[in-house]
Amino acid sequence: MKEILNIIKVGGGVVEDAASLASLLNQFAALDGRKVLVHGGGRLATALAANLGIETRMVGGRRITDEKMLEVVTMVYGGFVNKNIVAGLQAKGVRAIGLTGADGDIIRSHRRLPKRVKMDDGSEQMVDFGFVGDVDKVDAGLLSALIESGVVPVVAPLTHDGEGHILNTNADTIASSVAQALAGHYDVTLTFCFEKAGVLRDASDEGSVIPLITEEQAGKFIAEGIISGGMIPKIENAFDAIHKGVHQVVITHSDNIDGSKGTTIKG
Amino acid sequence: MKEILNIIKVGGGVVEDAASLASLLNQFAALDGRKVLVHGGGRLATALAANLGIETRMVGGRRITDEKMLEVVTMVYGGFVNKNIVAGLQAKGVRAIGLTGADGDIIRSHRRLPKRVKMDDGSEQMVDFGFVGDVDKVDAGLLSALIESGVVPVVAPLTHDGEGHILNTNADTIASSVAQALAGHYDVTLTFCFEKAGVLRDASDEGSVIPLITEEQAGKFIAEGIISGGMIPKIENAFDAIHKGVHQVVITHSDNIDGSKGTTIKG
Repeated sequence: MKEILNIIKVGGGVVEDAASLASLLNQFAALDGRKVLVHGGGRLATALAANLGIETRMVGGRRITDEKMLEVVTMVYGGFVNKNIVAGLQAKGVRAIGLTGADGDIIRSHRRLPKRVKMDDGSEQMVDFGFVGDVDKVDAGLLSALIESGVVPVVAPLTHDGEGHILNTNADTIASSVAQALAGHYDVTLTFCFEKAGVLRDASDEGSVIPLITEEQAGKFIAEGIISGGMIPKIENAFDAIHKGVHQVVITHSDNIDGSKGTTIKG
Repeated sequence: MKEILNIIKVGGGVVEDAASLASLLNQFAALDGRKVLVHGGGRLATALAANLGIETRMVGGRRITDEKMLEVVTMVYGGFVNKNIVAGLQAKGVRAIGLTGADGDIIRSHRRLPKRVKMDDGSEQMVDFGFVGDVDKVDAGLLSALIESGVVPVVAPLTHDGEGHILNTNADTIASSVAQALAGHYDVTLTFCFEKAGVLRDASDEGSVIPLITEEQAGKFIAEGIISGGMIPKIENAFDAIHKGVHQVVITHSDNIDGSKGTTIKG
């Protein structure tokens, strides 16, 4: 029997105000057993960039990370957001350790090549996302050694290329990659927290959470249009993680990180 | 026989230009055996603060760290400086891990109380340094476990109070506290790198480095005025570390972090 490991992904917005940070810290500290927290970056980087006169450019919901923006996200994600979560968790008795992918070489990535992207007007353009990393490998050895010594990794959405460059990396992808790598060591539940209660049968009704989705049901829900838009890649990523050994994926609200009221996705 | 551990303290200025960063990375990567790097913060925080319209106030060479400045130093020291050094070391094959005192609860401190400080004009004033930490304890357990697993800690000049607050902390003090805590596990050499070749017999002659200073000699040099000004507290701190178990302290130039050409201080 493998030990249970909870990997919780939250947005970077949780540290934007004292109330949401306190809620995260309390909920995460209350989770029993082995756990990992992965946090996003979010609007704080945009705000700091604006204060510094650096323009934020987004294409298809993704940030273009030029050299100046890389400095900003390294400071905000790796410094401000990560260290405030870590210090806050210590105050709750959680022995947190903040990590980027560069730390201990835990997540190696390569810089994304310019990519053909569909624009809002339907046209296609080649887009260079800049210093953005696509994950190549996660070292489960150091992570599991830390976890077994009672330490709780808190992972920022930054990786490195092994050649001295930090790369901005999607936090959902990091959570999923870390979950897959640790699935060899643990019985992993991967929980994505967002602003809705789960996968909804009716987008306008927060009470219509679908409690359990199997792969067969997912196909049906997509065919019927119940699952649509941005939820489709989330569900596809969830099954991808499950095919690679993750026990289950939960999609739930940030106020419910123990996943008890969200949508559970199983193979 | 204890294993040898080298603890190297460098200023935060090393990441300010590509040449000095490359020099640090090459020199530190070339050091054999177990090692720890402690880095300062420095002018990058002042520059970022200025860009954000935050005024930097210094009293007696120490930064006043109000809430806004704490955000800046957390971003710059814990994010930008620390992660760039870590990613750079990874590229040299050093399995570096970046840590603040909050990470893994390795360095606990308390916020400094307002303090009577002698001003430049000779008057005395009560000064509240703000979110500045004085070190209470270092956890040598996690640090030595990391070192024994082949990981190289890279420590930023930030600690925490155990109540959720990051505190700005002098990097020399961190280096000295870490060295003392690890002296129980290792035969520690603590090397302070700065802009001079070592302790000089003649301040205007970089060739006049005193190669070895014992405590008896130090007293004589101070009495004779050969060691004076800002060098006196450095020497006092060095002997303090030695009394607490550190094998030797080296004061040397940043271009010579292996300490072969600096001043060695021994009990």
